[in-house]
Amino acid sequence: MKAHCESFEVATRGKGTYEITEEVEAIVRASGVRTGMVTVLIQHTSASLVIFENADPSARADLEAYFERLVPEEKDYFVHTAEGADDSTSHIRMVLTRTSETIPVAHGRMQLGTWQGIFVFEHRRAPHRRRLAVSVVGV
Amino acid sequence: MKAHCESFEVATRGKGTYEITEEVEAIVRASGVRTGMVTVLIQHTSASLVIFENADPSARADLEAYFERLVPEEKDYFVHTAEGADDSTSHIRMVLTRTSETIPVAHGRMQLGTWQGIFVFEHRRAPHRRRLAVSVVGV
Amino acid sequence: MKAHCESFEVATRGKGTYEITEEVEAIVRASGVRTGMVTVLIQHTSASLVIFENADPSARADLEAYFERLVPEEKDYFVHTAEGADDSTSHIRMVLTRTSETIPVAHGRMQLGTWQGIFVFEHRRAPHRRRLAVSVVGV
Repeated sequence: MKAHCESFEVATRGKGTYEITEEVEAIVRASGVRTGMVTVLIQHTSASLVIFENADPSARADLEAYFERLVPEEKDYFVHTAEGADDSTSHIRMVLTRTSETIPVAHGRMQLGTWQGIFVFEHRRAPHRRRLAVSVVGV
Repeated sequence: MKAHCESFEVATRGKGTYEITEEVEAIVRASGVRTGMVTVLIQHTSASLVIFENADPSARADLEAYFERLVPEEKDYFVHTAEGADDSTSHIRMVLTRTSETIPVAHGRMQLGTWQGIFVFEHRRAPHRRRLAVSVVGV
Repeated sequence: MKAHCESFEVATRGKGTYEITEEVEAIVRASGVRTGMVTVLIQHTSASLVIFENADPSARADLEAYFERLVPEEKDYFVHTAEGADDSTSHIRMVLTRTSETIPVAHGRMQLGTWQGIFVFEHRRAPHRRRLAVSVVGV
């Protein structure tokens, strides 16, 4: 039985999606786990995680455009705006996507589908350093 | 290798968010796991989970106001209303948020970010008792 | 300590929800794990997972009708339409629901609530074969 936990940071440059599949895969390899699972948690409330199509960037552009419409910044019923118009909207976009994802591990590798990648979804306009905690358990 | 599973209940008093971070942290401590992961599942289909900002209650008020607009109760295309106008809407709000969250554990503690808390998101108007199942695995 | 990972396929017949609770429960039994957790991942980016009410089909009909309105196919701001009008919408519907779910295991059984079932949520119009990876860890 093995259990391994570590964390790493990603630098974001404003709203958008940033792939972290390779960083997570490297932690799975380092853990020595052949069969089990890995969980990834983003330690923030204004950025989130998505497992998304990793081949065609136009799919991610559509995703980002859709979220601008689904949770528009100009909504005047938001009161939590101390940090700007992207304050409450970033928390809500995070709630509508994911904070943690857990992926089966077999033969020492994450069992993602062919077209799946793990992405940080940044909801703030300004650059940020985002920290991810990753834990692997198994044999 | 350790594995530990237990459950607990939370009393809700109508729609809103109810923090359960301490209850989950206590189960992690009781498990004796130092390195691994913990998963929390809410055993209901009309309440859900979110990991959310735990400092400023105005952020949670905005979240709740947003969901009233995103999934309004008066929509006349809902047919599943046997238990009232908050019946189908509660199921849909649950689908748009989370049923389970999995959090890495290191040094015997959940690796949540500084401003993150785990919350039950109640979608029914009436008070309910909500049951959470929590499982911890690791070494 | 036990860890077990396998996968299975589900045939979908167009948009809608398809229950997979029994298939996952069978893998939990086969793993021999009595206490621990199971994670399910759908290996696609145009279908997703939900844990949903499994008793009344009208609740699922409302869910499906709601998503048609929340992410309508006719939106002219989508550019990623190489595979048809249900291309980007299927990716977005997948992001708004779940790719992985993790469920506590006790006494050798998933700790789902009485009315909860695990469903594949198909977002494409055409029939597809969808692959699910399932991993169980525990003692």
